[in-house]
Amino acid sequence: MLSILPSRLQEDFDALAQIGSTGDGGINRPTFSEAHLVARCWYRERVQQGGLEFFADGAGNHSAILPCAEPGAPTLLLGSHLDSVPYGGRFDGALGVLAALEVLRIVKEKRLRLPVNLEAIDFTDEEGTLFGLLGSSALAGKLTPQSLQEPRGGRQALLDGLRRAGLSENGLLHSRRAPESLAGYLELHIEQGSRLEQSGVEIGVVTGIVGIASFQLVFTGRANHAGTTPMNARCDAAQGAAAFTLAVRELTLAEFPGCTANVGQLKLEPGAFNIIPGQAVVGLECRAADEAIFTRLETALLQRARVAADRFGLGLAITPLGKHLPAAMSQSTQEAIVQATDELGLQYTRLASGAGHDAQMLAELCPAGMIFVPSAGGVSHSPDEFTSWQDCLNGANVLLQAALRLARGF
Amino acid sequence: MLSILPSRLQEDFDALAQIGSTGDGGINRPTFSEAHLVARCWYRERVQQGGLEFFADGAGNHSAILPCAEPGAPTLLLGSHLDSVPYGGRFDGALGVLAALEVLRIVKEKRLRLPVNLEAIDFTDEEGTLFGLLGSSALAGKLTPQSLQEPRGGRQALLDGLRRAGLSENGLLHSRRAPESLAGYLELHIEQGSRLEQSGVEIGVVTGIVGIASFQLVFTGRANHAGTTPMNARCDAAQGAAAFTLAVRELTLAEFPGCTANVGQLKLEPGAFNIIPGQAVVGLECRAADEAIFTRLETALLQRARVAADRFGLGLAITPLGKHLPAAMSQSTQEAIVQATDELGLQYTRLASGAGHDAQMLAELCPAGMIFVPSAGGVSHSPDEFTSWQDCLNGANVLLQAALRLARGF
Repeated sequence: MLSILPSRLQEDFDALAQIGSTGDGGINRPTFSEAHLVARCWYRERVQQGGLEFFADGAGNHSAILPCAEPGAPTLLLGSHLDSVPYGGRFDGALGVLAALEVLRIVKEKRLRLPVNLEAIDFTDEEGTLFGLLGSSALAGKLTPQSLQEPRGGRQALLDGLRRAGLSENGLLHSRRAPESLAGYLELHIEQGSRLEQSGVEIGVVTGIVGIASFQLVFTGRANHAGTTPMNARCDAAQGAAAFTLAVRELTLAEFPGCTANVGQLKLEPGAFNIIPGQAVVGLECRAADEAIFTRLETALLQRARVAADRFGLGLAITPLGKHLPAAMSQSTQEAIVQATDELGLQYTRLASGAGHDAQMLAELCPAGMIFVPSAGGVSHSPDEFTSWQDCLNGANVLLQAALRLARGF
Repeated sequence: MLSILPSRLQEDFDALAQIGSTGDGGINRPTFSEAHLVARCWYRERVQQGGLEFFADGAGNHSAILPCAEPGAPTLLLGSHLDSVPYGGRFDGALGVLAALEVLRIVKEKRLRLPVNLEAIDFTDEEGTLFGLLGSSALAGKLTPQSLQEPRGGRQALLDGLRRAGLSENGLLHSRRAPESLAGYLELHIEQGSRLEQSGVEIGVVTGIVGIASFQLVFTGRANHAGTTPMNARCDAAQGAAAFTLAVRELTLAEFPGCTANVGQLKLEPGAFNIIPGQAVVGLECRAADEAIFTRLETALLQRARVAADRFGLGLAITPLGKHLPAAMSQSTQEAIVQATDELGLQYTRLASGAGHDAQMLAELCPAGMIFVPSAGGVSHSPDEFTSWQDCLNGANVLLQAALRLARGF
């Protein structure tokens, strides 16, 4: 049976993990940071060294292409992303891009004739330093001039990032692929949770991806002198933000089992020891796999923010910063992954993804599927993120076999 | 009776309020910011235009000097500070410096022969952007190489600030004045509270200044993916910081009447929407007028931080960032202020200051006193800070009369 070349995949993996390395196993490659731009150049070189065609679209997505002999054939897309969260891990995204590249190299070297083009893609800004699923949203035709006005990383950061990468809003808005040009999409990724590890199973067949909504909440009180304003005469924005931060956890734990919510950002203004905070800016994100529950979760969280503001006599402004509805993976790709897993003698389980992925955007265009491999301790978005090398190889071989099945129409 | 020249003081006041103006009545002149450096240059020019000597010490304190004919005479120091908190008000500090300068100009123009040198001083970094009471601490010989290692604004900010202003740590450490060189210290300042306004009295005679302690508290959890880590498996540093922020208010309100405590800074790391905060950095400040209560307040607050950390399974590191004990104003200066107030036909009340002031440092060197004028609504450290012009003039005239009394040994 055809398999990927472990030594070459490992060399690529180790070389990429050096770019933006934090020295403790982690990497710091936020979108269009210096390290991320270097990683993108490195990928381009590896594509060309592999004898594959290189393609960059207007959204900054970078692809290796192994063209089909047949003109007009559709493309089977494989991929993931090379950007990271700030001080994240070296497996998240990187494994999926490198395994996809390796699949193309193997197919090319074995001179397999497939009825599709193969494409190994690195999507721009999956993690959301700037926007979140930016490259795959562009490819799915989901971006609008309006949505680019209020990206979750802020408008200026988006403009600065695009400038650094030599890209434009116009390019982002005109990178849509026609659905009929795509035969399907497959993505290998670490689970980022502990279900595979806990059940002792090598492969996760993803059934769907949670919906994600992000908000900025601004609590407004009155800045005043922290030594001369009596405690009972204060209008302290930090109190509202603190009460809300606790309420987010309590509410989700108590009333929304299986869902998640996070206060990942909190900034007090003006931010001096001796000034009562006049403003607290809070970054909130919540996730649910079921669409009806997702809507209830959002509503309940924002209601708690209003309660917290009222409790301390504060103003509250809520800005939605982006929303992705829950997305189902296609039956055909799930079946191809299951069969590949069986053929390789590996165990699998079906599960929903608690993390967002580019696959949810692709699901709107074509049959999309995801392969998960175990995350040690369920840790990710951290330098401690780890997946054993054998698990990485298993995942890459499942990707290869599932891709061949999908390409041949199995 | 001698009095200051209202039009000249107002011209100075209005000109200074333009430097770093935020356009809404406020100013933004944190220590050694561009605007603060411009304000310092402007003061130097005003000193020289007034025909007074200009003197800058190694701590960056800027003074106008009207020398005594008698060699070796002691100096009666008058002053305040030109720096502001971020986005603060135009009265805090500025009024005291400009009134002091005006006193010197009047005494010079009237050719009064006093047995002391008069000095109108602008103290460096009163507000604590970098250190807090930096210039007056230097003058009192209270700085040590160790204390400069952990300033409350951070070591790098202090070094960068000194570099921008052309100053050095060595200069800070060698700007001490000999106590015998000082005849006393007087400072005019806005109250920054609402007691004068509420009691309908024009002048506050300050009896003492609260003690202030600042701390950095770092809550440490575990950064992890915010979508795939179940709510009950999180180690979320934001939860500890939030619980502590609420506890600071509750504890101080319930158990420490008359005292204050403030969480003015709160930063989550790494600070992304989709990462559970691995670290929360909190800036805490507390104040009390009584030394025994001050110690109990500190202890109780830090104990609450440990409770909050334990509740969410977090680590906690506490770094003291500076502490000033409560300081009493001298009887002689209080008497001089009371007599000046009587002479001017104004009403006064005695009160303690809830805000820290350079006078507390000077109190360790020489008889020190403070004159308060009313703050509208008690608001300060805010663009809405306001004191009526008549109240400003009253304060400046009390400063003049009290200074003459002290100078002449009344």
